[in-house]
Amino acid sequence: MVQPFDLVLRNARAVTASDTFLTDIAIQDGRIVQLGLGLGVARRELDAAGRTVTPGGVDAHCHLDEITSGPVRMADDFDSGTRSAACGGTTTVIPFAAQRRGHSLRAAVEAYRQRAEGLAHVDYAFHLIVTDPTPAVLEEELPALIAEGFTSFKIYMTYDDMKLDDGQILDVLAVARRHGALAMLHAENADCIQWLTRRLLAQGHSAPRYHAQARPMLVEREATHRAIALAELVDVPILIVHVSGREAVEQIQWARTQGLQVFAETCPQYLFLTAEDLGIDESYHGARCVCSPPPRDRANQDVIWQNLRNGLFTVFSSDHAPFRFDGTEGKQPGGQQVSFDHIPNGIPGLETRLPLLYSEGVLGGRISANQFVELTSTNPAKAYGLHPRKGSIAIGSDADLVVWQEGRHVIRNQALHHNVDYTPYEGMELKAWPALTLARGAIVWDGQFHPQRGHGQLLRCGLHSLLPRPPVP
Amino acid sequence: MVQPFDLVLRNARAVTASDTFLTDIAIQDGRIVQLGLGLGVARRELDAAGRTVTPGGVDAHCHLDEITSGPVRMADDFDSGTRSAACGGTTTVIPFAAQRRGHSLRAAVEAYRQRAEGLAHVDYAFHLIVTDPTPAVLEEELPALIAEGFTSFKIYMTYDDMKLDDGQILDVLAVARRHGALAMLHAENADCIQWLTRRLLAQGHSAPRYHAQARPMLVEREATHRAIALAELVDVPILIVHVSGREAVEQIQWARTQGLQVFAETCPQYLFLTAEDLGIDESYHGARCVCSPPPRDRANQDVIWQNLRNGLFTVFSSDHAPFRFDGTEGKQPGGQQVSFDHIPNGIPGLETRLPLLYSEGVLGGRISANQFVELTSTNPAKAYGLHPRKGSIAIGSDADLVVWQEGRHVIRNQALHHNVDYTPYEGMELKAWPALTLARGAIVWDGQFHPQRGHGQLLRCGLHSLLPRPPVP
Amino acid sequence: MVQPFDLVLRNARAVTASDTFLTDIAIQDGRIVQLGLGLGVARRELDAAGRTVTPGGVDAHCHLDEITSGPVRMADDFDSGTRSAACGGTTTVIPFAAQRRGHSLRAAVEAYRQRAEGLAHVDYAFHLIVTDPTPAVLEEELPALIAEGFTSFKIYMTYDDMKLDDGQILDVLAVARRHGALAMLHAENADCIQWLTRRLLAQGHSAPRYHAQARPMLVEREATHRAIALAELVDVPILIVHVSGREAVEQIQWARTQGLQVFAETCPQYLFLTAEDLGIDESYHGARCVCSPPPRDRANQDVIWQNLRNGLFTVFSSDHAPFRFDGTEGKQPGGQQVSFDHIPNGIPGLETRLPLLYSEGVLGGRISANQFVELTSTNPAKAYGLHPRKGSIAIGSDADLVVWQEGRHVIRNQALHHNVDYTPYEGMELKAWPALTLARGAIVWDGQFHPQRGHGQLLRCGLHSLLPRPPVP
Amino acid sequence: MVQPFDLVLRNARAVTASDTFLTDIAIQDGRIVQLGLGLGVARRELDAAGRTVTPGGVDAHCHLDEITSGPVRMADDFDSGTRSAACGGTTTVIPFAAQRRGHSLRAAVEAYRQRAEGLAHVDYAFHLIVTDPTPAVLEEELPALIAEGFTSFKIYMTYDDMKLDDGQILDVLAVARRHGALAMLHAENADCIQWLTRRLLAQGHSAPRYHAQARPMLVEREATHRAIALAELVDVPILIVHVSGREAVEQIQWARTQGLQVFAETCPQYLFLTAEDLGIDESYHGARCVCSPPPRDRANQDVIWQNLRNGLFTVFSSDHAPFRFDGTEGKQPGGQQVSFDHIPNGIPGLETRLPLLYSEGVLGGRISANQFVELTSTNPAKAYGLHPRKGSIAIGSDADLVVWQEGRHVIRNQALHHNVDYTPYEGMELKAWPALTLARGAIVWDGQFHPQRGHGQLLRCGLHSLLPRPPVP
Repeated sequence: MVQPFDLVLRNARAVTASDTFLTDIAIQDGRIVQLGLGLGVARRELDAAGRTVTPGGVDAHCHLDEITSGPVRMADDFDSGTRSAACGGTTTVIPFAAQRRGHSLRAAVEAYRQRAEGLAHVDYAFHLIVTDPTPAVLEEELPALIAEGFTSFKIYMTYDDMKLDDGQILDVLAVARRHGALAMLHAENADCIQWLTRRLLAQGHSAPRYHAQARPMLVEREATHRAIALAELVDVPILIVHVSGREAVEQIQWARTQGLQVFAETCPQYLFLTAEDLGIDESYHGARCVCSPPPRDRANQDVIWQNLRNGLFTVFSSDHAPFRFDGTEGKQPGGQQVSFDHIPNGIPGLETRLPLLYSEGVLGGRISANQFVELTSTNPAKAYGLHPRKGSIAIGSDADLVVWQEGRHVIRNQALHHNVDYTPYEGMELKAWPALTLARGAIVWDGQFHPQRGHGQLLRCGLHSLLPRPPVP
Repeated sequence: MVQPFDLVLRNARAVTASDTFLTDIAIQDGRIVQLGLGLGVARRELDAAGRTVTPGGVDAHCHLDEITSGPVRMADDFDSGTRSAACGGTTTVIPFAAQRRGHSLRAAVEAYRQRAEGLAHVDYAFHLIVTDPTPAVLEEELPALIAEGFTSFKIYMTYDDMKLDDGQILDVLAVARRHGALAMLHAENADCIQWLTRRLLAQGHSAPRYHAQARPMLVEREATHRAIALAELVDVPILIVHVSGREAVEQIQWARTQGLQVFAETCPQYLFLTAEDLGIDESYHGARCVCSPPPRDRANQDVIWQNLRNGLFTVFSSDHAPFRFDGTEGKQPGGQQVSFDHIPNGIPGLETRLPLLYSEGVLGGRISANQFVELTSTNPAKAYGLHPRKGSIAIGSDADLVVWQEGRHVIRNQALHHNVDYTPYEGMELKAWPALTLARGAIVWDGQFHPQRGHGQLLRCGLHSLLPRPPVP
Repeated sequence: MVQPFDLVLRNARAVTASDTFLTDIAIQDGRIVQLGLGLGVARRELDAAGRTVTPGGVDAHCHLDEITSGPVRMADDFDSGTRSAACGGTTTVIPFAAQRRGHSLRAAVEAYRQRAEGLAHVDYAFHLIVTDPTPAVLEEELPALIAEGFTSFKIYMTYDDMKLDDGQILDVLAVARRHGALAMLHAENADCIQWLTRRLLAQGHSAPRYHAQARPMLVEREATHRAIALAELVDVPILIVHVSGREAVEQIQWARTQGLQVFAETCPQYLFLTAEDLGIDESYHGARCVCSPPPRDRANQDVIWQNLRNGLFTVFSSDHAPFRFDGTEGKQPGGQQVSFDHIPNGIPGLETRLPLLYSEGVLGGRISANQFVELTSTNPAKAYGLHPRKGSIAIGSDADLVVWQEGRHVIRNQALHHNVDYTPYEGMELKAWPALTLARGAIVWDGQFHPQRGHGQLLRCGLHSLLPRPPVP
Repeated sequence: MVQPFDLVLRNARAVTASDTFLTDIAIQDGRIVQLGLGLGVARRELDAAGRTVTPGGVDAHCHLDEITSGPVRMADDFDSGTRSAACGGTTTVIPFAAQRRGHSLRAAVEAYRQRAEGLAHVDYAFHLIVTDPTPAVLEEELPALIAEGFTSFKIYMTYDDMKLDDGQILDVLAVARRHGALAMLHAENADCIQWLTRRLLAQGHSAPRYHAQARPMLVEREATHRAIALAELVDVPILIVHVSGREAVEQIQWARTQGLQVFAETCPQYLFLTAEDLGIDESYHGARCVCSPPPRDRANQDVIWQNLRNGLFTVFSSDHAPFRFDGTEGKQPGGQQVSFDHIPNGIPGLETRLPLLYSEGVLGGRISANQFVELTSTNPAKAYGLHPRKGSIAIGSDADLVVWQEGRHVIRNQALHHNVDYTPYEGMELKAWPALTLARGAIVWDGQFHPQRGHGQLLRCGLHSLLPRPPVP
């Protein structure tokens, strides 16, 4: 006698990074086990006729419950963060385990592992943030952690408490090369920012909008070129995170035409916000949109769209960094309006990432549905060693799926599920929103949030598979 | 009672342009109907355990039974051509229906349709070649033919009996734009070639190797830039065929970084041959490798490899243009050694295209297996409106499949199935060769050729789907 | 006893392309014979204390009394043209001797020689225009004329009655290479212009402003790339005339960074006019500013300024092509307003060229005085084989000098000396104007025009000296 | 009664940066006072008939008697250094006054002023080297020194005891901008060099040739890009010193096409040496040619030549840094062969700079004589505020002149006049050598050295005049 499947999604218009096909999707034990039309019975059946179904999103750049300094505190932990993700169609998040200077990296991993333990509604993995590449870190901890499935790490070229100097970056990249790990670089020139900030403050310019003036495009361009040069020296692939506009894009284009393996990520804020969202006067309202690099202008938005379409960008992430605007722990530390250089950097975006790109990219005719899947799910999964378990609608893959509902949808923060008191996209009209999210076969969102606290597991990452496998001898 | 499938391929390592997964592949009525492990029974079962299975190749640039002038005759018709294709893993070919000046385009389509009728072992479609864009062709024939499923056309910028001038090209591109068709451009500057040829002949240089000197890289670069400018003026995507090296690649890179929708194709001869294969002395042997653009040098081969990897190239085709070396109808017209400008242009390559790229690209560690599928099957199918019917391993797609056998395989012309008396790759050692080819579910090759004359059907092409679909209003 | 000089200019602030120095300038027999302070007495002495003195302008691109077709007629002959030049500080003009198809080139030279005979107030030479490169022209006439001092020729890539195809261009460039002559290229793609023109007219768009739409920047960019490729094939230096904006500039920058010897010219209309000067509505007024390539926009003006400063441009010319707006022989042929494609192309500019650049370039802080001299005098003289006789303030050079008067000067056509009834720069406020012009020692302008009809001589040009002389064996 | 001139050079073929003319050159009180043929009598007359006469060289990058650390000592002081310069046709040198960390900049100026006092045979000025930009230096010392005629300063991006970080560089550039001074940047990434050096030494690679491996081209390219970005941020012109090859050149080309005012210098070692001159085995001989950046390869030499010709380079200097090979104070500190990172950096070149470029550049047909003058004399004088006193043959300029003797000349160190025991160019055959050098009218070299110790004066530099003067209001 034939066993019924756990769940079958009927007549889906399934979209992968390369293909689109009509199919039932049969799920057993949280995995996709059969594709085809007219598949056998299941204990639960869902009708997806006429609907597009994509792999659940993989948000490869988000910050959850990260330890910050002073009175500031991230608004989302692994509960609210993965809740918000699930309701926006994202079924895997990869936040950061950040080393603190003077402390071990493994300690960071343990700390963050505990912070996440039992809270997540969807699966998660960790990127490491290396802030103190001591010999012990380089020679012991990193290799061991890579072997244990922590195969990517972020390097900051700015932020005083995080940044590495060029020599340290080379050391970390050499470890990445030796062990096949992937380094992500935040490319902004710290000295330039500090120099401009000092000047702006000296001139009495402290409002949020000066944040953008303290980090002009060339500051990002320079660091991008430098990051590329350092990776070239070590001969290792890298991924430049949150690329914001033309000048950085041109450096990456240049690198790729030289044959260098430089990958790039961009984020919704570089498609949908501009520097004007940080304010056009001295008011504090724009503190909500303070993030780094800052949003640029419309011409740069066009460049980002164009390079999403033409394949320059590999990954589209949220860079969700949640701080409340009101209260004492977020954008107004201690309840005070502070000068731009003291505003916590970051904006929320986990829940809106997929709908924004699906609506304005796919339904707006700027990218194909296949490209959408590639950018938001398949490639992030490949980049961080989670593919083919994550990132596709394929036999054996986790049953992480999103069913899309096309139709007018207005973004309202009150309808979002993060723990932040605003969204930068308040009032924006979209053309679609997820109707259903499955996380390893479990319904976590169907217009209502269905909590699955603890269902989300820590994933062990393999090595990235963005590049050809080594030659067969 | 459950119906058995026609055929099931068991435990395949299926590779698509984006994914790789272990699966059975169930086939009914020539289509893939189910994927999953442990699928139901079939009338015929094949074990693919441990084997890579890719979609059958789509060779989007090959010449079969094309009408030529003088004593010259193409060596392959639709019988031998598709036989050769099948034995090399290619299950769809798109040769050309070439208009003759002074004649209608529809007449060409009818003529070629008849030439193919009942002969093909695998499916085929036609690109049109427009050589005489009269008002009737532009305003009536082309639109009608596009509507009937002939949705791509090739434009020659060289060859006296084929080339269009810039004004004619603009006219044809305008039709492509209006009707969503895709124009392919052969980009070489005819005047330059003629000028150089006259000089070389005047200096007594007539051996095959001077063919390469008469068509230096800049001749291709110039025409590539011009083709891009013409397409930019009309605002229409184009595809540059058989790109041979760095200077042309740089023009295309430039175009894409400007946001222009310029696609590109390359061919095995630009990866595996150099100008030296046309001869290093005055001997006639190199006439075998006379094709246009000519192969360049090793540095240019590297550039082509690099741009296969980094995504610049969309399509990898054979440009199979079969002429026998001996006899009176091929490379020695009338049995005579002729000056380089009279040697029929073209080399055979239908059967070796996939094995060369799978062996040296995938197993050589230069591109991923997913990229291989994308370049040789998925993208050509998308470019010419055959996707998702062709180009994937997905529910509903035609059961066009290749099972690969890894292991040493030496190329010998005597083991190939075309009707040409040589291969440029004689003696080359490969790391793999197709073990099995299925054409719409029928076994056409399993180490032996299994003729299916007439099984191959003329495909009706849709519009290309390389780009996002138009915005949802 | 010491002979007095003919003339001494006292205490001049002399400016050459490289240097600036205080000096007397002693003139004998029309040449500069001594420099130094406190030079001996002269029959005539002029005080230039506090004044900048530059070499007289060499206008290397202007049209005088050129034979045109139909009712149209150039407004300036060698009398009025050189009068206008002299009053604007230009002491050498190089108009064109244009071959007519079907006629010999030598016949053209003789015809133009006669048209100029006895009329010119300042010296002149001729560029040849080759429109019919028959074997006789290529093998006999051109070599002979080069030997006789007609060492430059212009090649048109557009205009039906002038343009050469690529093969003909190669033939002419090969002659240039063999004999050391310099080819000037008018780079616009004729087919594109014709195609756009037909479309615009079919849409009922016939007003002058559509002239700019029929010749968009890419039409110039494409031809520029092609011209460069053709020159590269022949391995010969070329000079691209009247470069109008960024896209063409980028092609030339690219060529130079490849080591190709591509020189470039620009003109006042690309610094001071925009496409809006051709009209922003359907009125005919803008016919005054119809010239090819058309003026672009402010961003392109900036690019031209920047590349004047950074040394990309070698020559700054007027492209004076004089047609009256009123009457029956100029911009309204037969007294009719015609569609944009029938408006005679060209604007007047001989007299305003130097003051515009001196005022807005030198006094506007955009280029140095030395660069001004280099662009307007020294380099044109070098490019066309007139240096060191023309183009400098140096011992042995012709006493062609301009004394500048700084101060507000409003351009009024009624105060100009050409035979055109308008200037595109009417009402523009300049910061300087020539106070004095010496042509081979003769005062032709000192606020008043002093006719010297017949004083101007036909110059025999040497080979260009823009490049290093050949190596010493 | 007419006063006789001090000296007249008769019938010279005088070459300036823009012109070439036959003239007598009359000298009075060390200055050029008259030009013309047949000038009046002089107390001393020299016949230059048939000879090329150029302005004396200005060597804007050389190290004399610089204080070094440890046992190492520069071989040339202001006596031997300027002697060597004079005998090679250089009549102005601009060495460095280097601040020591923790000490004032003014103290450095005083110290170096004293080291030079009374020793120099030709004129000299100083660039400052800023190594410790304290507020006092930035706000007081630098502005005061600029006002006193020390208007250029060098910034090191490498060398532990010299380098500034990016923030410090911005501070110094801001001073340059405010006061119109010119900053010179040594562009190599210190961290990369240190990282590579550590690795090479750890692998046991200590021979001189590894110096080149520790400083690959990308290390220079990165720092060049960064230097450009920093200057762009401050909006100030800069000059990149000793550019060694293609990758750095491309960054500078890019900057200039963006309209940035980035000037560049190159040196003989990048035209005539390659990395192989540092050794092809483990021997110590190549320590002679250890300098930074290291010489590259032939392809890079070609790029440098090409960019000398096309105008990218503004200045051609020696970067003379004299260390003896034998003995205990030079290339073998303490008489020991040391690892490559401890070899004093630098090669001698003051005396050979002009003859090498005149011979291989001008007489070799690679650059014009005018370009030679521009690169070696006029532009350096303009860049560092010494023009028009230095850098030309013009009325009022110092009578610094070189008369060239064309003919075979073999370089032999024993015939040179520096205090170094080798030249990298030993045995090289040149096509010319200076026959005569005049330093402010005094004959310092006529095949024999004529000491003029103390004749050389400290020059007060004005602001650079490479760019247009500010606009007239």
